[in-house]
Amino acid sequence: MTALPGGVDLDVAVAEGARAYELDRAHVFHSWSAQGSLTPMTVIAAEGSYVWDGEGNRLLDFSSQLVNTNIGHQHPKVVAAIAEQAAKLCTVAPQHVNAARSEAARLIAERTPGDLNRIFFTNGGADAVEHAVRMARLHTGKHKVLARYRGYHGGTDLAVNLTGDPRRFPSDRGAHGVVHFNGPFLYRSVFHSQTPEQECERALEELRRVIELEGPGTIAAVILESIPGTAGIMIPPPGYLAGVRDLCTEFGIVMIADEVMAGFGRSGKWFSIEHATTEAGPVVPDLMTFAKGVNSGYVPVGGVAINDAIAATFTDRVYPGGLTYSGHPLATASIVATINAMEDEDVVGNAARIGADVIGPTLARMRDAHPSIGEVRGAGVFWAIELVKDRETREPLAAYGGSSPAMAETIAACRKGGLLPFANFNRIHVVPPCNIGAADVEEGLRILDEALFVADAHTA
Amino acid sequence: MTALPGGVDLDVAVAEGARAYELDRAHVFHSWSAQGSLTPMTVIAAEGSYVWDGEGNRLLDFSSQLVNTNIGHQHPKVVAAIAEQAAKLCTVAPQHVNAARSEAARLIAERTPGDLNRIFFTNGGADAVEHAVRMARLHTGKHKVLARYRGYHGGTDLAVNLTGDPRRFPSDRGAHGVVHFNGPFLYRSVFHSQTPEQECERALEELRRVIELEGPGTIAAVILESIPGTAGIMIPPPGYLAGVRDLCTEFGIVMIADEVMAGFGRSGKWFSIEHATTEAGPVVPDLMTFAKGVNSGYVPVGGVAINDAIAATFTDRVYPGGLTYSGHPLATASIVATINAMEDEDVVGNAARIGADVIGPTLARMRDAHPSIGEVRGAGVFWAIELVKDRETREPLAAYGGSSPAMAETIAACRKGGLLPFANFNRIHVVPPCNIGAADVEEGLRILDEALFVADAHTA
Ligand SMILES: Cc1ncc(COP(=O)(O)O)c(C=O)c1O
Ligand SMILES: Cc1ncc(COP(=O)(O)O)c(C=O)c1O
Repeated sequence: MTALPGGVDLDVAVAEGARAYELDRAHVFHSWSAQGSLTPMTVIAAEGSYVWDGEGNRLLDFSSQLVNTNIGHQHPKVVAAIAEQAAKLCTVAPQHVNAARSEAARLIAERTPGDLNRIFFTNGGADAVEHAVRMARLHTGKHKVLARYRGYHGGTDLAVNLTGDPRRFPSDRGAHGVVHFNGPFLYRSVFHSQTPEQECERALEELRRVIELEGPGTIAAVILESIPGTAGIMIPPPGYLAGVRDLCTEFGIVMIADEVMAGFGRSGKWFSIEHATTEAGPVVPDLMTFAKGVNSGYVPVGGVAINDAIAATFTDRVYPGGLTYSGHPLATASIVATINAMEDEDVVGNAARIGADVIGPTLARMRDAHPSIGEVRGAGVFWAIELVKDRETREPLAAYGGSSPAMAETIAACRKGGLLPFANFNRIHVVPPCNIGAADVEEGLRILDEALFVADAHTA
Repeated sequence: MTALPGGVDLDVAVAEGARAYELDRAHVFHSWSAQGSLTPMTVIAAEGSYVWDGEGNRLLDFSSQLVNTNIGHQHPKVVAAIAEQAAKLCTVAPQHVNAARSEAARLIAERTPGDLNRIFFTNGGADAVEHAVRMARLHTGKHKVLARYRGYHGGTDLAVNLTGDPRRFPSDRGAHGVVHFNGPFLYRSVFHSQTPEQECERALEELRRVIELEGPGTIAAVILESIPGTAGIMIPPPGYLAGVRDLCTEFGIVMIADEVMAGFGRSGKWFSIEHATTEAGPVVPDLMTFAKGVNSGYVPVGGVAINDAIAATFTDRVYPGGLTYSGHPLATASIVATINAMEDEDVVGNAARIGADVIGPTLARMRDAHPSIGEVRGAGVFWAIELVKDRETREPLAAYGGSSPAMAETIAACRKGGLLPFANFNRIHVVPPCNIGAADVEEGLRILDEALFVADAHTA
């Protein structure tokens, strides 16, 4: 008998996995998919940076699932905290005070920049975004929301309409007061920039122009990811987020930083907006959304960190929004355990070091070796490899919004090598857990290096 | 040392509760409230049908929190299942197959009426509604959604716009393709009906008229709660839901039954739509949303049950929606344990019997004794007491959307008596756990009976 993590017998788990697969095909409706074409992988066990598939093969998890298991799978302290809170008190209604929720709010508020002192808990990222927008609209008395192209904000109706990637198209009804604008992305600059300084300046010009043409008096909020994640991990050039902050202040617009994917250690800081700190000080958004890394997704949860001015709007005035599981004890207890474990084990520092010492230098070498790599970029354990058919033209290896045989083959080669990658259009992201060890990262990058020869074969 | 449930020392828990209260006031942003006016109750422990407040007082929970703890607090089998799944595998991405999710989908699909065979999991009720509407829109290629006045569908932007109660007003921007219609509510009939038959007929006439005037070719869905919950637990008159089903079929409109509050035993059936079964057979909606009772809210989860025709729409076509925690292992494991425990312990049968044998007859007697009671109505453990200033005029004890000193005093009297009630505008709902014992219900109703003398003092 071979044991899997969690003390599960391998043969038992494989048999259970086979039945799970059958039931899945019969009864589970999957997100973002045509149901008929799916042959999903089964996960029967997981531990740290590894998962086991339905045949019992171990795979190195370079996806962190959906970039959420920042402390890896099955962290013993968080697992213990969940069991402990479950035994004590699983659920209370949001109107009641609960110790786990209070402590989670304190721990988050302690880490958020500036005066983001109050926490509204939701169940995930999308509803955090929905509520942040409502707060901004009621606080300003204005209606429109500007959102970045090449961004993702969630799957509910408003959140997907804010989204600046093709997942929005089928749900877009053009009537949400949502206006999209271009952010900085030097590798594929829409501003014809040559340098980061130019890209920053021109992107800020663009935002000012959009604000002026849409009417500052109509705009409630600007929402953007501190580092756009799924859309390609484009770290904004120095000065950009500070410039957005200034524009928002100038025009009385609420700045919403979406840290659902970028937050809680992912980029080697507690929050990715910390990368934008200048000599003038930190960039402090008015609202900040979070989920994923806050508890590594062990229990569904998300939330909005709220600054003092917006909180004050709702001191005497009712905030008209809520949900049954806001501040759920089990979810918030897992946040408390996660943040404490991340602090005790310097998980954020580890992510920064792994990025600076291992991923960054290795990807730079790989870029030189593989003609299919157009660019590598990132920080911490938050990296994108932009794959191209041709380095000169920068033609992507799969079209925007699509896939291609070249991408599919490259991903398959990763899987065959024992690596579970995160892929989007023409990109492969290197997004392992924040507490991954150097040896595991090196092993994963070695597998990726091999797989990229498959991509190379598709270059011009 | 006095021990609370969960083996917690009372003094320790009270001290912890005091600190939790302070941190809550400093850092927690509460739903549906003006933050400055809150003096929330602290919950330090809970078990079965009881909760303990911050001073260690035991209260009988006639609210089931937000009408979600259908199997009561801290059911040992569900608590054990959560600890077990936590030790095994807390989270996987939605695209992977997982045993807990597969089995939960099977158990739900086995219980849903008709061909609602596929389950899309969400984090709660609001996002279930959001996704159901998206499915309906893409399936029909149409856009508008008709929703009942006196209904609640959640706090995200689209869900709150579908909502037919005052919580919608501050978020309503009138541009969602949402049209509200009147449903049957004989006690306050907008149709001037005298009998349930008349109310049913006229409400169906109204719906047909709205469909015709809005344009059948523009309407994707009709959404309504099988039994409107928060809005007043109005069981539809015989024939109404069957009539809605027929209208939807006639006009090619998707029927969405929202069973978030009414489902999973609440009304003494697995789903409240079963009350609408006629000689012609069960009423089968095209989509059914659920949350709350599916796992008593022990872990945040919800979902949409999808019929074969709508699932077929997405066999070859991508369903453009999703969320990071769709089909979360910990959440779905708690569903499996909950449904199995409900089955083993005949929790649904218990709810039906408690309603028929205890709550119904006792509330009928109380109505005769208290001039403040205008009407009592319900089924299972899902009852509303409609409080009025005057039985003749039926003037409510608090205005629609508001509260009143009379209501506040009545609620305070419940709390003083040791009862935690669920109140909304001029109503008190009797919504204890589905597995509550007869003695506990009788005790709670006795406390309520006492408290209603306070309400009586405000009658004409
Ligand atoms: C930046 C960002 N915002 C919001 C979301 C939505 O979060 P959820 O899937 O929990 O609704 C995501 C999910 O990937 C995200 O990456
Ligand atoms: C009928 C109904 N639908 C939807 C919802 C929204 O559920 P949630 O609060 O989990 O978002 C509720 C919540 O009370 C409800 O009662």
